[in-house]
Amino acid sequence: MPTAFVFDAYGTLFDLHSVQQRCEGFWPGKSLQLSQLWRAKQLEYTWQRSLMRRYAPFSRVTRQALQYACEALGLALDESRSQALMEQYSRLALFPDVREALARLKGHKLAILTNGSPDMIDPLVAHSGLSFDAVLSVDPLKAYKPAPEVYQFAVDRLGVAPEQVSFVSSNCWDALGAKSFGFEVNWISRGGAPLDRLGLRPDRILKGLFEL
Amino acid sequence: MPTAFVFDAYGTLFDLHSVQQRCEGFWPGKSLQLSQLWRAKQLEYTWQRSLMRRYAPFSRVTRQALQYACEALGLALDESRSQALMEQYSRLALFPDVREALARLKGHKLAILTNGSPDMIDPLVAHSGLSFDAVLSVDPLKAYKPAPEVYQFAVDRLGVAPEQVSFVSSNCWDALGAKSFGFEVNWISRGGAPLDRLGLRPDRILKGLFEL
Repeated sequence: MPTAFVFDAYGTLFDLHSVQQRCEGFWPGKSLQLSQLWRAKQLEYTWQRSLMRRYAPFSRVTRQALQYACEALGLALDESRSQALMEQYSRLALFPDVREALARLKGHKLAILTNGSPDMIDPLVAHSGLSFDAVLSVDPLKAYKPAPEVYQFAVDRLGVAPEQVSFVSSNCWDALGAKSFGFEVNWISRGGAPLDRLGLRPDRILKGLFEL
Repeated sequence: MPTAFVFDAYGTLFDLHSVQQRCEGFWPGKSLQLSQLWRAKQLEYTWQRSLMRRYAPFSRVTRQALQYACEALGLALDESRSQALMEQYSRLALFPDVREALARLKGHKLAILTNGSPDMIDPLVAHSGLSFDAVLSVDPLKAYKPAPEVYQFAVDRLGVAPEQVSFVSSNCWDALGAKSFGFEVNWISRGGAPLDRLGLRPDRILKGLFEL
């Protein structure tokens, strides 16, 4: 049995849907395409910046990805819309099964390990009312997932061995990065996307946190 | 004046369009969506594997990305189709302005610096009939662009200083990785895509190699 459960935040505990809804208000009919491109660029920039050794906090990366996506789609973006969307990131809803899943895991160490910089993740966790043993941002490391030092950071801060950690993420590449590091991993595949071909498999593929 | 011109291969010198045409033959009506997803996953996997320190050669990454993309789109892929598409990668056409642009740069050192593994890039360059002072694959480094050691490798192998190199890529993030390392960079923006927001700008944005 694992000693600690470590959760990814965006898309795993917190639903990004309300950001898309806000986009729909600003750019009717464009929000699906915009939010997909925004998310794709946000992740690309984390990987590219990590490899270039030009880390910038996730809040800046997220704003820059939004600028790119709006320009690519020909959508007008001003500072007030950008600000409104970033604020939405601090008020994301939990997926419906989160509270009960966390309650059932009581007695274990529970942590978040996220790309989100403290200026984004701290207000979000406070808004949710959830409590964790640790809310860990990659920010002090100046590197993003799936670099192994990110998963090592969780081990160091929680005071457990890698094999005592059960990691939970809806991002397949994040789950496989954690697997590569040495965690037991649960890939939460809510939408039934294909498994990423990175030469590794998650220990469990679950339809939601309720299956944990 | 630069001493050496270093070129990216796929999408910069070599046009991937014939791979898409082959896809169209296998899966009519699906080739645009497939080739876009295939290319996106191919790049994602290079970044993720580099960060995970689980390098695999570009030929394997490219096949694995194809498997993912076909599964995601519900397209049947067998070994013979996969093989046929990989062979197409060794017979890509040059963009129409490549031969003349290279001829005009005679007298400079000319090199390719590519993610492509030798099993992919060597037959492709041979097929093109072009000659270079060096055809450099990231393969011995076990890391992909835009890691700085990749651009350093070109400097070491060409025996020039970073500031003597003019780098040419149609991939904006690659151009900016080279800029971050210290090269003068030319971003070839044939399609007029937005500039990537990575905190850097290319020295020149060109519509094709003919503007070099």
